[in-house]
Amino acid sequence: MQAVDAARLWRHLMELGAIRGPGEGVDRTSFSDAFQRGRAWLVQHFEEAGLEVWVDHAGNLHGRLDGEDDATLLLGGHSDTVPNGGMFDGALGVLSGLEIAATLAACGRRPRFSLEVVDFLAEESSAFGLSYIGSSGYVGELTSADLERRGPGGESLGDALRRVGGDPTAVGPVDPTKRLLGFMELHIEQGPILAREPGSLGVVTAITGIAWYRFRVQGRAGHAGTTPMRERRDALVAAGRLASRIYEAASAVTDLVATVGRLEVFPNAVNVVPERVEGVAEFRSPSADVLDRQSREIMRAALPPEVSLGCTLSFEMDGSTRPVTTSERLQGVIADAIAAAGARGVRLFSGAGHDAVEIARRTEVGMMFCPCRDGVSHSPAEWVEPDDVALALRAYDRAARQLLGA
Amino acid sequence: MQAVDAARLWRHLMELGAIRGPGEGVDRTSFSDAFQRGRAWLVQHFEEAGLEVWVDHAGNLHGRLDGEDDATLLLGGHSDTVPNGGMFDGALGVLSGLEIAATLAACGRRPRFSLEVVDFLAEESSAFGLSYIGSSGYVGELTSADLERRGPGGESLGDALRRVGGDPTAVGPVDPTKRLLGFMELHIEQGPILAREPGSLGVVTAITGIAWYRFRVQGRAGHAGTTPMRERRDALVAAGRLASRIYEAASAVTDLVATVGRLEVFPNAVNVVPERVEGVAEFRSPSADVLDRQSREIMRAALPPEVSLGCTLSFEMDGSTRPVTTSERLQGVIADAIAAAGARGVRLFSGAGHDAVEIARRTEVGMMFCPCRDGVSHSPAEWVEPDDVALALRAYDRAARQLLGA
Repeated sequence: MQAVDAARLWRHLMELGAIRGPGEGVDRTSFSDAFQRGRAWLVQHFEEAGLEVWVDHAGNLHGRLDGEDDATLLLGGHSDTVPNGGMFDGALGVLSGLEIAATLAACGRRPRFSLEVVDFLAEESSAFGLSYIGSSGYVGELTSADLERRGPGGESLGDALRRVGGDPTAVGPVDPTKRLLGFMELHIEQGPILAREPGSLGVVTAITGIAWYRFRVQGRAGHAGTTPMRERRDALVAAGRLASRIYEAASAVTDLVATVGRLEVFPNAVNVVPERVEGVAEFRSPSADVLDRQSREIMRAALPPEVSLGCTLSFEMDGSTRPVTTSERLQGVIADAIAAAGARGVRLFSGAGHDAVEIARRTEVGMMFCPCRDGVSHSPAEWVEPDDVALALRAYDRAARQLLGA
Repeated sequence: MQAVDAARLWRHLMELGAIRGPGEGVDRTSFSDAFQRGRAWLVQHFEEAGLEVWVDHAGNLHGRLDGEDDATLLLGGHSDTVPNGGMFDGALGVLSGLEIAATLAACGRRPRFSLEVVDFLAEESSAFGLSYIGSSGYVGELTSADLERRGPGGESLGDALRRVGGDPTAVGPVDPTKRLLGFMELHIEQGPILAREPGSLGVVTAITGIAWYRFRVQGRAGHAGTTPMRERRDALVAAGRLASRIYEAASAVTDLVATVGRLEVFPNAVNVVPERVEGVAEFRSPSADVLDRQSREIMRAALPPEVSLGCTLSFEMDGSTRPVTTSERLQGVIADAIAAAGARGVRLFSGAGHDAVEIARRTEVGMMFCPCRDGVSHSPAEWVEPDDVALALRAYDRAARQLLGA
């Protein structure tokens, strides 16, 4: 049979990557003009590959190849990007799925099972303050309150969804009676592990859960000239110690990362002892137990009296996503395919979120990771070597054909 | 002879304090409508006291009582306030000067030397990004570049100065040939020291100098989920440690305070390991040597490799004011007057800046401090007990009469 064509996949990655808004990097944020142009490019290529094409009510673009059996394997990714992003994050999943489907279609013999390539809508955080819009809509988790959120210019998410071909009046999951074999995605690692081991590919065991804590360190404002050092309740010094302690505590726990990425100082004036600092601490772990227990313990211990300078810490959890374990079966299929392709399989978890988190509510999920240079992603510097794309495609195609009986 | 009237001074403090913009606290920022109404109130009361009244080219309001000798003692303060400020900062100096001058004028006998009560323009930081506008203009330090600065609405400082009765076309110091005996100001402490010792008044020995350092902690951005803890160059954790170390190092040095009051995180996103933090560290000391040497040493040692997480610190001094020592003679006169008034004199330095910093370029300066509740200033909560105002006026009047030969 005909083999997948890595050169064509690479060309497609470059072509889709050239469809972008102005500025450095790839800007194809969901619902934007560049996003719509990217979708048009995908529709054309899905159709040229002989796939049946439609947009579901949650705004996801599908390209379907019927098999002998109606049971369907989903292969996918997302064509939206972060602002100023790269050419691979998300696109690799959609375009490798297209390459596999196009190759199967071209050989003229139906696979045993059906295949749908899906471009999920708005995987990245959107202008509506939501991510995973298409995948959560697919599983019926998008609420009417979500659809009433307003973006820039006052447009509602519902209206924006209609603009990209979705239907905000439809409720519930997409194709609820369709029998699914599972969902699989090839994605760049967005971390440094595989890049250090040439010839390796990742078998994703889990996708981390995330817990966000908003915190406030309350001190006391004072004149920066007249308040003696020993009488200060300097909220910034206390918050600095807190950030350092969160960093140290999380570093000591396996499978946990913590980040204070956002911090604001009040009144933030050169000549006033800071009165208050507000920020967000984010914790991620592939283990629900580690995430829940350790994040709480670390926050509770983050500003003990001996370092607080009399400031008080208050915090509250401000949302979380649960960790998702990928299916053992798909892990096995992926690991076998990696070995058969001559690559070294590395089991790892994903520190970043993916649509699989939502799709796992409906069917079993699996992910394969491909190395990216220096682990850099969400950046114009995001890059994957063509040889690594070719190796990953070879392994990914094997896994897909194994699942499809093709 | 007739004695100064503490009840009248208190009434004047309340009356002037009632002239303010809308909102909490006293808002009589320089050049504002409320400021102009305050000035009109002062002109009326200066004239009613029998003083010769004029505004000099630097925008300072003068009320003069001629003595036998032309040599002149300046007593003063400032009627402008910070936004949302209090009733005493600045006003106490102007109105206690008025009380002394009015009392001398009422008794009908000329003092040996002349007296001028001065309301200096814009002691507080103004909308033009400058403080000490009137006092620096008085000593000829206001430059043409300063006068071209633009405030809100695009008005130049020169035009604003004209609006309050000054003359931006006049150059050089005010009354350069006038023989000055010195400048003295009664001010609230704006710190907690005197408030802890009932019946005490302050003999100000010096006014601190200030050194500002802009700094930047440069780390490396990273995905908050996929970057392992041990590979992070987290600029916020490093900057937090830096702030804590500056605090600790300054606390260990006598007569030095340091404040990181302003800090900004980049990109300041919940899910990105901070790439860069920028801020300002402010150091204050009444000793030029301590200020220069220690501030530099503390900045140099603020982020050693063992705590930097691989981040780099760069900093540069971004302006400074020199410390000013008050005159030994005026310190002695003030200390004697405090003792004679039955109060306890406490020698201390001022952590806050005052017009005396500028006037010291021209003549000797002295300051007396009066306690304020909890050391709070630049706040609607700023308060001085009437009994403390009365005690301070008694001592201040003695000092002034000693200098005036009255």
